[in-house]
Amino acid sequence: MNGHVHLEESDMYESDGKLFLSEAFNVIMEEILHKGTDRKEKVCEWTEPDQLRALMDLDLRENGESHEQLIQRVRDVARYSVKTCHPRFFNQLFAGMDYHALTGRLLTETLNTSQYTYEVAPVFVLMEEEVLRKLRSLVGWSEGDGIFCPGGSVSNMYAMNVARYWAFPQVKTQGLWATPRMAIFTSQRSHYSMKKAAAFLGIGTDNVFMVKVDESGSMIPEDLEAKIVQAKSQDAVPFFVNATAGTTVQGAFDPLNCIADISERNGMWMHIDAAWGGSVLFSKKHKHLVAGIERANSVTWNPHKMLLAGLQCSVVLFRDTTNLLMRCHSANATYLFQQDKFYDTSLDMGDKSIQCGRKVDCLKLWLMWKAIGTCGFSERVNKALALARYLVEEMEKRDNFKLVSKGHFVNVCFWFIPPSLRGKENNPDYQERLSKVAPAIKERMVKRGTMMVGYQPMDGHVNFFRMVVVSPRLTTKDMDFFLDEIEKLGKDL
Amino acid sequence: MNGHVHLEESDMYESDGKLFLSEAFNVIMEEILHKGTDRKEKVCEWTEPDQLRALMDLDLRENGESHEQLIQRVRDVARYSVKTCHPRFFNQLFAGMDYHALTGRLLTETLNTSQYTYEVAPVFVLMEEEVLRKLRSLVGWSEGDGIFCPGGSVSNMYAMNVARYWAFPQVKTQGLWATPRMAIFTSQRSHYSMKKAAAFLGIGTDNVFMVKVDESGSMIPEDLEAKIVQAKSQDAVPFFVNATAGTTVQGAFDPLNCIADISERNGMWMHIDAAWGGSVLFSKKHKHLVAGIERANSVTWNPHKMLLAGLQCSVVLFRDTTNLLMRCHSANATYLFQQDKFYDTSLDMGDKSIQCGRKVDCLKLWLMWKAIGTCGFSERVNKALALARYLVEEMEKRDNFKLVSKGHFVNVCFWFIPPSLRGKENNPDYQERLSKVAPAIKERMVKRGTMMVGYQPMDGHVNFFRMVVVSPRLTTKDMDFFLDEIEKLGKDL
Repeated sequence: MNGHVHLEESDMYESDGKLFLSEAFNVIMEEILHKGTDRKEKVCEWTEPDQLRALMDLDLRENGESHEQLIQRVRDVARYSVKTCHPRFFNQLFAGMDYHALTGRLLTETLNTSQYTYEVAPVFVLMEEEVLRKLRSLVGWSEGDGIFCPGGSVSNMYAMNVARYWAFPQVKTQGLWATPRMAIFTSQRSHYSMKKAAAFLGIGTDNVFMVKVDESGSMIPEDLEAKIVQAKSQDAVPFFVNATAGTTVQGAFDPLNCIADISERNGMWMHIDAAWGGSVLFSKKHKHLVAGIERANSVTWNPHKMLLAGLQCSVVLFRDTTNLLMRCHSANATYLFQQDKFYDTSLDMGDKSIQCGRKVDCLKLWLMWKAIGTCGFSERVNKALALARYLVEEMEKRDNFKLVSKGHFVNVCFWFIPPSLRGKENNPDYQERLSKVAPAIKERMVKRGTMMVGYQPMDGHVNFFRMVVVSPRLTTKDMDFFLDEIEKLGKDL
Repeated sequence: MNGHVHLEESDMYESDGKLFLSEAFNVIMEEILHKGTDRKEKVCEWTEPDQLRALMDLDLRENGESHEQLIQRVRDVARYSVKTCHPRFFNQLFAGMDYHALTGRLLTETLNTSQYTYEVAPVFVLMEEEVLRKLRSLVGWSEGDGIFCPGGSVSNMYAMNVARYWAFPQVKTQGLWATPRMAIFTSQRSHYSMKKAAAFLGIGTDNVFMVKVDESGSMIPEDLEAKIVQAKSQDAVPFFVNATAGTTVQGAFDPLNCIADISERNGMWMHIDAAWGGSVLFSKKHKHLVAGIERANSVTWNPHKMLLAGLQCSVVLFRDTTNLLMRCHSANATYLFQQDKFYDTSLDMGDKSIQCGRKVDCLKLWLMWKAIGTCGFSERVNKALALARYLVEEMEKRDNFKLVSKGHFVNVCFWFIPPSLRGKENNPDYQERLSKVAPAIKERMVKRGTMMVGYQPMDGHVNFFRMVVVSPRLTTKDMDFFLDEIEKLGKDL
C-alpha cells in the first residue's frame, strides 16, 4: 500500500541512541568539564577560519556516518570551541560554570517542551510563576507580572512594546499611523538593544534621544530633562525612558531615583535595563547601587550573566497588575488556548509572549537556587565585587596599568601602557600607538590560549581592556595571574 | 581588606559539581529516556495545579539543599513533566526524540557560548553558515542569507521587518510616521504570529488582511487579489504577503506559484511560513507540495518540528544577496564588533540579529544531519506521510470517525462520533453535543496518561481532534492503538 516506505520500527534505534548519548556525555565531561575548567589547559585553541572549516569537515552529505566518526565529531566540537567555563575566560558578561544550573539545562533539553500551556508544561508553568515572583520580590514588588525572554535585547523590546501599548493602546490594532511621533530616552552608554528595539518596533532610531553621561558612565539627569524638552519641541511625545543598571562596558549605574522623579513628572514609563547589574539585588552590601529600582515600571534582568544560569536566561519584570502584558501581546489562538479545557486555563500563559513555542528557561535558575539558596547568590555577588576591588588595588600598585575610570561594579576598564609608551603621554602619536596595544595583546593572548578578555574604544578613549569578574571559582591568584599575563604579553610592545 | 568575604576557592566545588551532574544524568536517562519512551509507561502523570505546587515545593529559600534532596528534585521534575518523547505524544507539532540531536543540545549547553562573534564561537559561526547554506540549497537558492531565531514566530517577524526595510528603508531611522500605511496579506488559517508580528512591529493588526481559504485550508488566490484591491482603496500600500506551507491545524499548503505571480505583479515581498511544512523539501516524493518555494523572498522553517532537532531550532532564510538582513538590523556596537581584530571580522555576524547574546541552535541539527544524512531525513518524512495516510485509511473503515477534510500532510483532523450521536446529524443539538466530545475524551486521556492529542474549534467547525504524525518511532500498530484508544475513551459518551 505504501510502496517501499518502511512503516515499522527498528529495535536498534532506542538502544543505539542511548549508547551514543552516554558515550558522548563522557566525552563532554572529559573535554569540557575536566579539561575546560583546568587552569593548566587552554581557554581556546585558536584556529584560522579556513583551517577550522577543513578540520571540522562541516559539509552535510547524503549518507550518515558511523558511531565512531560521530563521537569524534563531538570531541572536535568540544576541542575547537572556546571554554567559557574556564577560570580565565573574561571576554563577555557571562563566564564560569554552575553544575546545578547545567543539570537544569540538560533536564530541560531532554524534556523538550514548550512553555505555552499547563497541559504540556505543568511543572514549568508553575515554576516560571514562582521564579518570577521571587525575582520581583527582590526588586521590591509584592505583585506584578513578567516573562522569560530569549535574551536581554528581547526583554528590552518587550518592555518598550508594553510601554507603548500602555501609552497608546490603539497601536496594537491601528499601528503607529494612529499615534503621534514618540520619543525614547536612554543614555549614550546604554546597551545598543535600545536602538535595535526602536528600529524593530517601527519607532525609528532617530526617535531615540541619547542622554549624556558623566565620566563614570552614569546618565546625567539634567541632560535627560533637556532632551525631553528637545523632543517635545519636535512634536515627539516622550513615553519611555530607559535607565541602565550596569552598563556593558563600564558597569555604571544610572541614578534611578532622579530618573524616576523625572519620569513621573513627565508621565513616562520608566524601564530599567538591569540585565547586567540586577544581580546586586541579592547582596545587602551592594544593592544600594540600584536604590530606587522599585519605582520602575519594568526591569530587564539576565540571570545568565552574573548568576551563571547559562544562556539563555533573561527576564522582563513588570510592576503592572492589570494584565497589560497579556493584553498587549495576546492573539487568542483557539487551537492552542482553548477555553473549554478541564483545568484552570488562566495557567495557559503562552499568549503573553510574542513567541509561540517558547523554550523553558526557568528550570536552570530554579534548580541552582534550590542548591545554593538566596544566600549563595549573595556570597557570589559579594565575592565578585570584592575580587574586582582587589584587582583595581593591585593594578594601582603597578605603573604600567591605567584605569579608564573608577568603577563601582565588577567591570575593570584599563589601558596597559607598554614600556615603549611609558612617560610619552605628550607625544603626538601617543594615542594612536596606545590604540594598537590592546588588539596586539589580544591577538597574542588568544593564540597562546592563556586567557580571553575583551577590548573596545569608547567616545574619544582609544582601545582599552574591559575585564569582568564573574565566576565564583576565581581567586586573588587569578587576579594576580591576569595582571602578570598582560604584562608578559605586552612587555615588548 | 575585603571584610568577611571569602576570596579563595573551595576545592570541593568542581568535584561535587561533577558528581551531581553525573548522578543527575543517570536519573535523566532512567526517568525520561528509558521510561519516557516506553509505550507501557504514561505520557503524562496528570496532577492538579494546587497539588503539583505542593508536591514540587517550588518555593525558593535562603539556604540551599542537600545533594540527596536535589537529586530528588531532578526526579520530581522528570516525573511530573509531560514526556514529549513518548511514542503516544501527538499534542503539538513536535514529538519524539533524536539522540544525536539531543547530544548536540547537551554539548551546546555545556559549551555555553553566544553566536555573535568568531572569537567566542568559532565552530558555531562556521557551522551556522554551513547549515543555512544547505537549507537554502534545498529551497533552491545557491546564494542568499539567513539566521537562526528563537522560534518560528520570531523568524516570521524577522521576515516582515526585513521586507519593510526593503520597501521603505527610511523606517529604520524615522519610524512608520515617515511611511504610508502598509498592508500585509495572509490566509485566515495562517499562524497567529502574523498578527503578533504586525502588532509588535507597529504596523497594527487591522493592517493584516485575512485572505479566504478553500475547504482544505489553502489560500484562494482570487481572494488575495481582491484583498489587495481593497487595501489599495484604503490607501494602504501592499508590501508583504505570507503564504503558508503547512498550516497549523490542517497542514494545508497555499498555492505558492499563484501567490508568487500575484506578488510579482504587485511588487510585494513574498514570505513563506514553512515552519511546519518545510521539511517536505527533503522528500523527492512530497516536495511537490511546496512547488514554487524558490520564488519566495524569505522562508521560515523550523527543524525543531518535523526533523526532531529539539526546541528551539528555527531558521529564516532570505533569497537576498545584498546584505539586507545586516543593513536592516545592524547597530554597529563597537564593544562587540571591533573592526581592528586580527581575523576576518566579516565572520562576526551577530549584528544581523535583533538579539545580542544568541543561543547556538545549529549544532543539534548539524550533528543529527551528520548522523543520518540527507537520505535519513527523506526517509523520516516519507514514513510520517505514509503513516498519516494509513491512519486516514483505517479511520475511514470505522464509522465512528469523520474527517474534517482530506489532508495532504501529516495532520489528520477528525471528529469522533460517540455511539449516542451516531445517525443524529439532523438533531438540533447535534453540533452542540459534538463540540463537547473532544474535550471530554481529552480529559480522560490525560488523566489516564495513555496518550496526548490536541483539539480545537475552527470557523464553524465545532471541536475536533488534530492528530499529527511526527516521530520516526511510530508504527502502524501505534496508529491502530490510537483509533482503538479514542473509541475506548469515548464509548459511553
